[in-house]
Amino acid sequence: MAKDKKLVEAITSMDVDFAQWYTDVVKKAELIDYSSVKGCMVIKPAGYAIWENIQNELDRRFKETGVENVYMPIFIPESLLQKEKDHVEGFAPEVAWVTHGGLNPLQERMCVRPTSETLFCDFYANDIQSYRDLPKCYNQWCSVVRWEKETRPFLRSREFLWQEGHTAHATAEDAEERTIQMLNLYADFCEEVLAMPVIRGRKTEKEKFAGAESTYTIEALMHDGKALQSGTSHNFGDGFAKAFDIQYTDRDNKLQYVHQTSWGVSTRMIGGIIMVHGDDSGLVLPPRIAPVQVMVIPIQQHKDGVLEKAEELKSALKAAGIRVKLDDSEKSPGWKFSEQEMRGIPIRVELGPKDIEAGKCILVRRDTREKLECGLDEVSKKAAELLETIQKDMYARAKAHLESHITDVKSYAAFKDAVEHKPGFIRAMWCGSEECENKIKEDTTATSRCMPMKEEEPVSDVCVCCGKPAHKLVYWGKAY
Amino acid sequence: MAKDKKLVEAITSMDVDFAQWYTDVVKKAELIDYSSVKGCMVIKPAGYAIWENIQNELDRRFKETGVENVYMPIFIPESLLQKEKDHVEGFAPEVAWVTHGGLNPLQERMCVRPTSETLFCDFYANDIQSYRDLPKCYNQWCSVVRWEKETRPFLRSREFLWQEGHTAHATAEDAEERTIQMLNLYADFCEEVLAMPVIRGRKTEKEKFAGAESTYTIEALMHDGKALQSGTSHNFGDGFAKAFDIQYTDRDNKLQYVHQTSWGVSTRMIGGIIMVHGDDSGLVLPPRIAPVQVMVIPIQQHKDGVLEKAEELKSALKAAGIRVKLDDSEKSPGWKFSEQEMRGIPIRVELGPKDIEAGKCILVRRDTREKLECGLDEVSKKAAELLETIQKDMYARAKAHLESHITDVKSYAAFKDAVEHKPGFIRAMWCGSEECENKIKEDTTATSRCMPMKEEEPVSDVCVCCGKPAHKLVYWGKAY
Repeated sequence: MAKDKKLVEAITSMDVDFAQWYTDVVKKAELIDYSSVKGCMVIKPAGYAIWENIQNELDRRFKETGVENVYMPIFIPESLLQKEKDHVEGFAPEVAWVTHGGLNPLQERMCVRPTSETLFCDFYANDIQSYRDLPKCYNQWCSVVRWEKETRPFLRSREFLWQEGHTAHATAEDAEERTIQMLNLYADFCEEVLAMPVIRGRKTEKEKFAGAESTYTIEALMHDGKALQSGTSHNFGDGFAKAFDIQYTDRDNKLQYVHQTSWGVSTRMIGGIIMVHGDDSGLVLPPRIAPVQVMVIPIQQHKDGVLEKAEELKSALKAAGIRVKLDDSEKSPGWKFSEQEMRGIPIRVELGPKDIEAGKCILVRRDTREKLECGLDEVSKKAAELLETIQKDMYARAKAHLESHITDVKSYAAFKDAVEHKPGFIRAMWCGSEECENKIKEDTTATSRCMPMKEEEPVSDVCVCCGKPAHKLVYWGKAY
Repeated sequence: MAKDKKLVEAITSMDVDFAQWYTDVVKKAELIDYSSVKGCMVIKPAGYAIWENIQNELDRRFKETGVENVYMPIFIPESLLQKEKDHVEGFAPEVAWVTHGGLNPLQERMCVRPTSETLFCDFYANDIQSYRDLPKCYNQWCSVVRWEKETRPFLRSREFLWQEGHTAHATAEDAEERTIQMLNLYADFCEEVLAMPVIRGRKTEKEKFAGAESTYTIEALMHDGKALQSGTSHNFGDGFAKAFDIQYTDRDNKLQYVHQTSWGVSTRMIGGIIMVHGDDSGLVLPPRIAPVQVMVIPIQQHKDGVLEKAEELKSALKAAGIRVKLDDSEKSPGWKFSEQEMRGIPIRVELGPKDIEAGKCILVRRDTREKLECGLDEVSKKAAELLETIQKDMYARAKAHLESHITDVKSYAAFKDAVEHKPGFIRAMWCGSEECENKIKEDTTATSRCMPMKEEEPVSDVCVCCGKPAHKLVYWGKAY
């Protein structure tokens, strides 16, 4: 059957212009729309439903580790933002300032939260008194604002949706343990649910979060070979506790500072899903996160019995716990196929009069376009199995892509060559000096993405930049 | 067993000072904390968990009616806010203005959304072209900001959490139908889930939403006899469509304006739950909305086998789908009872060594304090039944309270007397003039709450204020 061309023609091929392809997909798959508010997006139903699924699954996993949800104010008074020196330096240049409430100027201006460490600290300073109050493991789902100059839907926008966890612990060990626990939770979620393999690592001093002692990160590789920082987890030590005077009485009745962490992921993850799995026909959604997993598309639906049978299939699939829709609109089947492909729905079920006569239908995989015949009475079972297979295969392909896009380099010449000609991560040794890190960034635009947490064989024993002895293995790359 | 007094003593009796009682409960039940941001609150885990349950249940009901979730920007450029004349007049005096982004002044200032009609209209103007695009039934869960002068936790704060639904329809009839449908959805939710009976009615011209053709409301009655507007649903007709030029091509290829609605409920509902059901020992939560439905409290928990049996009961209750916790902290049982009562947990299970020997435990209802003996092997069954009974009884008591606090008056003298001496709603006829409405408010502080949607027998045939012929039956009352 010939496809209607209109939807498909409108997409730029990813090999021709990856950035334009991305923009085309987010628009044509109806994930977002631009708004009259510069740098802010409208998240449309198809985009928001992905976020809801991310939220539900993460929230469940958070709560299993003892996290409780709360809600902090949207505003931060300027004096509160300024309490931790590194933190304010990192964020003050990119916040939105509220100066008037109603018709009157404010006595003190407030920013719209870019992140809420200062609010949580202010709260904890009053709320925590004794070791019995610890740990506190709080999280909030909200939007934050950062006044970015260049914006791209999901990847970098002036407002985005996220969750931010903020915990307080009695000891440094407890804080470090929670920091790592949440990073692993994020990584497992990405791999198991989003079919998106990630490198788990620690940020260098230069790249860590403003005010943190250490920052851990998960870094995913996009189809074009650029890295996407997809989630971070910070250990603050007692730095914020000292700035905000958050102390508790320990079992020996002595005052101690708490140790804190924070960790977050955002709607940026949706950008990752698009750029890891998408193709020239549009979005390809991993079944576990897809708002609609199966689209039933009737052929010659005006003919007797076709729509009835299609409804039956839909009901059977729904009863099996599959998220299913039936497209019984007046569009042509080819048009519906294109739409289902653009929207990344993992399976479509094609069903026409001849199929019904033969007691079968066709399942078409979105990821491989493979077609499978299937008896009408076994659609639920086959579709459920196929969803599992697609999920597994999508992860395996993304994993193979990641692994085949890691280049080990020992010399600076090889480093520069790799940045130029080998899209992906570069593994190279680093002496630990910020000078080398800066030079590499200036010379190549590649940045240190992370030092892997998993022990890895060193590539060499000298810094790829300065040639001095080096023990730190770093993943480098261009990044979003 | 003598109760520890500390928690209980800290609460003001509701008969002594209802406002202070309310403040004591929200703090002592750990629903909120005040923050460094004036007029904004911190919603703590116990408070936020109630909101999550409200969200889950409402969201499910919304989606069953075809509503889809989206997310609009947090900011509204001033020029956009000004497009609909009545709307801007209603909201401009109470918005927070952002004037700087990062280090630079904005070219046009923006407010933090007080409500998002203007953003949805701006979006719909581009997104809606044909009758095939209609209806649009979108909703968002977010926070909004209104620069209130006097604030009270949940009831009136500068920032609050809510949902706002915004729909666009082809015809005036469709819009009116959706307006009523959502009001009834809210009312059913309040009655079935929050055990909070409401009056469903229409607002007068004076009291309707800024920019609406008509506003419908649900009005609940608090324990002190004051009304709480608990949810509203607005029909905008084509007013916003004309201001924002939202047109569609109909089946005859003619351009038509859409007809719109909006509807919302907020964290204010939590204030309603507190003031309808609470008592001098604290919060009393309806089982269907209670984050924890049963608290197991062991007696002499240091004795052999007590904690083990308590854990067993907890597991059995959990397996039966009941939200249950076990308080095995080192506090005394009496202290734990007070806490469980303060937090409004519907049932506590008391279990000590003698109970275990006798193969039984005690279930204590939070709402009536009634104690029931229960065999250890039938706890899940009995608790599940009891939760249903409590839910039903709480609604019946609230309903009886509402019905016994409605006073019919025919004369202005009787009206004033009722406002003074009979807390609750006043049913009285009204001629329809804003003068009478204003006079009543000035003379008595009572406002028109709504004109009931259900047909009710007129109280008389003349206006309670001016004595002219009157056909409109109005519920009046003092309100939060």
